[in-house]
Amino acid sequence: MTNHREDAEKFLLAAKRAEIQALQRLVRSCELVTTVSDLVHQLQRERGISNIYLVSSGARFADHRQDQMHCSSDSEGGFRQLLHEQYLGPGRYDSPRDMRLLNGIAYALHGLDELVNLRRHIDAFEVSALESTDAYCRLIAGLLSVVLEAADVADDPEVTRLLVALGNFMQAKEFAGQERAWGAIGFAGSSFDESLHGRLNHLQDCQRHSLEVFCEFAGNVELARWQAIEDSQDARDLQRLRLMIAALKDGEPIASEISEVWYQLATARIDAMHRLENAITAKLREASRKRVAEAQAELGHHYAQLEMMKSAVWDRVPALTVLFDPEVPGLYGSATATSVPALHGQTLTHSLYDLIRSQVTHIRRVSEELEEARRALNERKLIERAKGVLMRSLRLNEEEAYRTMQQRAMEMNLKLVDVAKKIIDIGNRPGGAGETLSVAKSGT
Amino acid sequence: MTNHREDAEKFLLAAKRAEIQALQRLVRSCELVTTVSDLVHQLQRERGISNIYLVSSGARFADHRQDQMHCSSDSEGGFRQLLHEQYLGPGRYDSPRDMRLLNGIAYALHGLDELVNLRRHIDAFEVSALESTDAYCRLIAGLLSVVLEAADVADDPEVTRLLVALGNFMQAKEFAGQERAWGAIGFAGSSFDESLHGRLNHLQDCQRHSLEVFCEFAGNVELARWQAIEDSQDARDLQRLRLMIAALKDGEPIASEISEVWYQLATARIDAMHRLENAITAKLREASRKRVAEAQAELGHHYAQLEMMKSAVWDRVPALTVLFDPEVPGLYGSATATSVPALHGQTLTHSLYDLIRSQVTHIRRVSEELEEARRALNERKLIERAKGVLMRSLRLNEEEAYRTMQQRAMEMNLKLVDVAKKIIDIGNRPGGAGETLSVAKSGT
Repeated sequence: MTNHREDAEKFLLAAKRAEIQALQRLVRSCELVTTVSDLVHQLQRERGISNIYLVSSGARFADHRQDQMHCSSDSEGGFRQLLHEQYLGPGRYDSPRDMRLLNGIAYALHGLDELVNLRRHIDAFEVSALESTDAYCRLIAGLLSVVLEAADVADDPEVTRLLVALGNFMQAKEFAGQERAWGAIGFAGSSFDESLHGRLNHLQDCQRHSLEVFCEFAGNVELARWQAIEDSQDARDLQRLRLMIAALKDGEPIASEISEVWYQLATARIDAMHRLENAITAKLREASRKRVAEAQAELGHHYAQLEMMKSAVWDRVPALTVLFDPEVPGLYGSATATSVPALHGQTLTHSLYDLIRSQVTHIRRVSEELEEARRALNERKLIERAKGVLMRSLRLNEEEAYRTMQQRAMEMNLKLVDVAKKIIDIGNRPGGAGETLSVAKSGT
Repeated sequence: MTNHREDAEKFLLAAKRAEIQALQRLVRSCELVTTVSDLVHQLQRERGISNIYLVSSGARFADHRQDQMHCSSDSEGGFRQLLHEQYLGPGRYDSPRDMRLLNGIAYALHGLDELVNLRRHIDAFEVSALESTDAYCRLIAGLLSVVLEAADVADDPEVTRLLVALGNFMQAKEFAGQERAWGAIGFAGSSFDESLHGRLNHLQDCQRHSLEVFCEFAGNVELARWQAIEDSQDARDLQRLRLMIAALKDGEPIASEISEVWYQLATARIDAMHRLENAITAKLREASRKRVAEAQAELGHHYAQLEMMKSAVWDRVPALTVLFDPEVPGLYGSATATSVPALHGQTLTHSLYDLIRSQVTHIRRVSEELEEARRALNERKLIERAKGVLMRSLRLNEEEAYRTMQQRAMEMNLKLVDVAKKIIDIGNRPGGAGETLSVAKSGT
């Protein structure tokens, strides 16, 4: 019997150790996104500088570009070193959900491997500013997907919320960077044609969309800092300039001096965003380390309690056991998962049963909070999937697919996510493609 | 550069290895639920036999009970041995989501540790048949929660669906076992009072509910086998007997000979259910092993492809790379996760990029199928949580809470899960308890 009793103890402790290991993994993820955030920022700068270098046929920013390439390479080195230390050691890749993160890293690394070729093409003026911008965008997209994967596989509610907020904020910043780049290309060409107007509009929409998700998941401190950025004079001036550009007719010429103003204002906003990004990554690292320390303290508490129970004093108190606890209704009319009675308030731990119950309560609280954090995340993913279904079945581009869904949601007085669910459900049915067409098209 | 190129390769392979390890974990889970299924079945028999032993004051089934206790102990031994071998070895408990499974096992083991005391109480006739039944129910509830946890943390869509089907089928069988026990107690007392009628009704409701979920997740083979059980003469006779009991007035006496018939019919159905359960666990083990073999073959394929790429022949084909692939739109108007272009059909793998892309496609397909399988599971969990909120805030018992939600869903013409979401949302708001009360009560 003594042996058996120890089985339950061993599993109680093993569960707590599994939590600690999961949280340590989270610390690694938070360090990873910190280095990704820096690398993305460097590459965004390199993209902008390379554009100016290209459009001026090398007359401008040649030295500046060399300096920036050094900064990017330093940052890349830090990223690769962290990957080697944290993810390629023996026995490091043993979590089931790591698969997605690891493959995301492989994808991002593959893009980085091509950077040297891209730079060579730019050196030789073999690519246009447009092609160069697109290539940098793809590279950065791969890196940002690592952040989104990290958010997706995180196992702690607070850290998940912060990672989702960060991932979307980084996306918004990237859209802002692309907006700056395309604006600069418009000014360089001295006119904005219809497709450029559409592109800028869409990038502004995308920023709004990502920032909405950021606001949903961010804490109050981050929200206040973001509000301050949006309320700044620079941001207001940028907004005025956006409206001015939007009002330009197709091909109408524009004074190229405004180009400098555009670049400065957009850059000021992006730099402010980067500072907030840094504040979020610092908070993430702190939060994840704190959670590890807490879980370790809980493990220590478990050991102490188990020792105390073995002492004679405690043996005299008849311990409540699971089989005769009237609060456990057995299976009678209950899903088992909820049949474990919760501990009311802070109770003294008298028995192994109390200890197991308190851990059940802890796990349930964390799981429910995590589920809550993921619910909104899953809704976003459903919208993305539905967009993919429409793109494939109706041969729409992304923007058209998204607008089609928005329009249908308005007409049907449904939430966007509910329209998405309908589209996916129809898409999953055999021969559903035709039906998707009719659902999506009927209102357009 | 060669070094760098190998980084991406290493992460591509690490991702596949992480998948293999996750699937190996799944094989362990499937073996675990197989032993749990057997142990639960033995304990259900022991519960029934102990009841007859108790109500006959030891005159009946004394030897039968000894034999059954040996069978239960053998099964318990197998369960504990598997746990030691598979979950307590060094470095075995290293997955984040294992925490819930491990704590569920600790809970179940703690119940098993108390079995020896329960049996001693029965030996000495210190517990009533009712108390004994309740104790066995709690013990079995703990074991069944292990199966539900295993379903909850599984990482493969097909296995998840089968595990959810199995978990709910086992619950239905347990409700059927409880129904048999309470029916037997009614016959032994020669009358059915109102509370016993309510209990039997509720257990039949619970069976229906669990079987609905089973039917939603089971494959066609299992569905056909289940249909055959329901269509059998025994099941029809049992249904007639249920209706006969339900028609009895409060306290109306009943011929005790029917007791034997009740027990036989209920047992025939439960045994048939157990045979189907065995078929499902066999299928689970086969499916999980097959998935491991597939993933290992894919890893072998990766190695072969990477070797081929290193040969000179392949180097001459200019490989498509991520930065200049027009199918990758970069971040332009797209959530990154969907910006990776899918491979159309079976393409020959020419480059590392193709290999990474094909793995992205594989991961996305598995993730989406898994999400689909979990969607229904999450809806069930929301309903359970909402029930908990109502129980706490309105001090209802489980049955009342469930009926209240059903009633509100009918009145408001909503799905049960949508009523559940409303209740949870209100419960989460500060001071929401009063509101919960009004939402839930207004129609009752």
